[in-house]
Amino acid sequence: MAAPTQPLSINLATVREQWTLGEAVEACGRHGIGAVDPWRDQVAKFGLAESARAIKDHGMRVTGYCRGGMFPGATPAERQAAIDDNKRAIDEAATLGAECLVLVAGGLPKGSRDLREARKMVADGLAAILPHARASKVPLATEPLHPMYAGDRCCVNTLKQALDLCDALGDGTGVVVDAYHVWWDPDLAAQVARAGSRILAYHVCDWLVPTRDMLLDRGMMGDGVVDLPYLRNLVEKAGYRGAIEVEIFSAENWWKKPGDEVLRTCIERYRTVC
Amino acid sequence: MAAPTQPLSINLATVREQWTLGEAVEACGRHGIGAVDPWRDQVAKFGLAESARAIKDHGMRVTGYCRGGMFPGATPAERQAAIDDNKRAIDEAATLGAECLVLVAGGLPKGSRDLREARKMVADGLAAILPHARASKVPLATEPLHPMYAGDRCCVNTLKQALDLCDALGDGTGVVVDAYHVWWDPDLAAQVARAGSRILAYHVCDWLVPTRDMLLDRGMMGDGVVDLPYLRNLVEKAGYRGAIEVEIFSAENWWKKPGDEVLRTCIERYRTVC
Repeated sequence: MAAPTQPLSINLATVREQWTLGEAVEACGRHGIGAVDPWRDQVAKFGLAESARAIKDHGMRVTGYCRGGMFPGATPAERQAAIDDNKRAIDEAATLGAECLVLVAGGLPKGSRDLREARKMVADGLAAILPHARASKVPLATEPLHPMYAGDRCCVNTLKQALDLCDALGDGTGVVVDAYHVWWDPDLAAQVARAGSRILAYHVCDWLVPTRDMLLDRGMMGDGVVDLPYLRNLVEKAGYRGAIEVEIFSAENWWKKPGDEVLRTCIERYRTVC
Repeated sequence: MAAPTQPLSINLATVREQWTLGEAVEACGRHGIGAVDPWRDQVAKFGLAESARAIKDHGMRVTGYCRGGMFPGATPAERQAAIDDNKRAIDEAATLGAECLVLVAGGLPKGSRDLREARKMVADGLAAILPHARASKVPLATEPLHPMYAGDRCCVNTLKQALDLCDALGDGTGVVVDAYHVWWDPDLAAQVARAGSRILAYHVCDWLVPTRDMLLDRGMMGDGVVDLPYLRNLVEKAGYRGAIEVEIFSAENWWKKPGDEVLRTCIERYRTVC
């Protein structure tokens, strides 16, 4: 398969242990990478205005802003606090010129075992922030997370679920297709096709065998078992022309390597594996 | 919710580090438990004839036999070896009087990233052993495993997928509904209802938050976030009247406790949580 025509983007979680936001943006520029996706804690630490300036100075696209969501809460006050926080995230995304706000739904509220109720809270939370997102021209990109996170992190676990939410909510909503979270799904081809223009971002890394940690042991593209060319072909056929964004949480491997080595490897694998 | 009316069964993996098959069967009898589900390695170690005798002597039901499957292989010879081995597992299940042979499909063949192909190999493998299973009156119970096992262990990851296989194969096939593997599924209620009389076994344990190991950190019922009464209600409404089978892999907790304590806890949680 030929190298991707979509541009490379670096989700800045990939080098979060090595660099500040400013250093990471500078390094991406130095390596010829033209797009990034920063996380809120990175932006908060470096400063919102400073982050926006660094991104602008390096002429970077911002392919997403990570992340809003986390809507379920045990009390109405907790749920309202999440809604308020998401509105702030929308404002930050607008300031940064992000192409979308990435949303991770959130898991079960403390003490709850009711996934159906948690899922309803997610739908309600999305509906509550959507007017502000539309007014701010920040599309809401719901990212289904792997089912192993259903309890504590994200109760939207399939692309079908995320698209059902988009169907219900309408304009200004879409999805993130992240290879790590969806590669196993028997319904993958049909749901990616269904997503069409609602694919707001495409994330890649790899699923390692064995996976030693459920959160922080993601692999570099090519080091695991995910058929990335197959998935890229699906998103291309669905009409996706956005970036290929590398997002790797790797506490024991990539986060311990020099940032420049990580970026060089991302570029090489993007060309040969993605 | 009232205590279950379905009888308790102990999957013998739950006490695999504590006891031989003979000791485990004797202990179950002593605790008033009338059903077990042994694993092939336990039976091989204790002896097939000796296992059958111990089970019969204690008047135990055998609610399943774990496990066949593992159909995908890199070469035709590997795939044929799996088929031959599954036929032996069927014979052993018949000797033990097991109510079904539990099948775990298998993951990607070594070096492959093609899940679609692996899934086709599973369908082919099931079709190849089905005549022998029917002749032996051993129903084949395909158990969808959690998507986190798609790469290395089981590429049948949803109840829908397992039921699609049953639809294609017909008589003599069914599914295992294991709470640990399916609790997250947004399509759970619909698929359990669809399964109906094809639910050949119902397994319980719990999903711990956090889960420290993807294979060997299952929780005791009540210690995690799975809504077990909800799922029991679904399988009951689907017509299931079989056993509630406890299957816990727990290297750092339950496998280290005295077997009698494990069984007492299973009984108590079965009455109060399941």
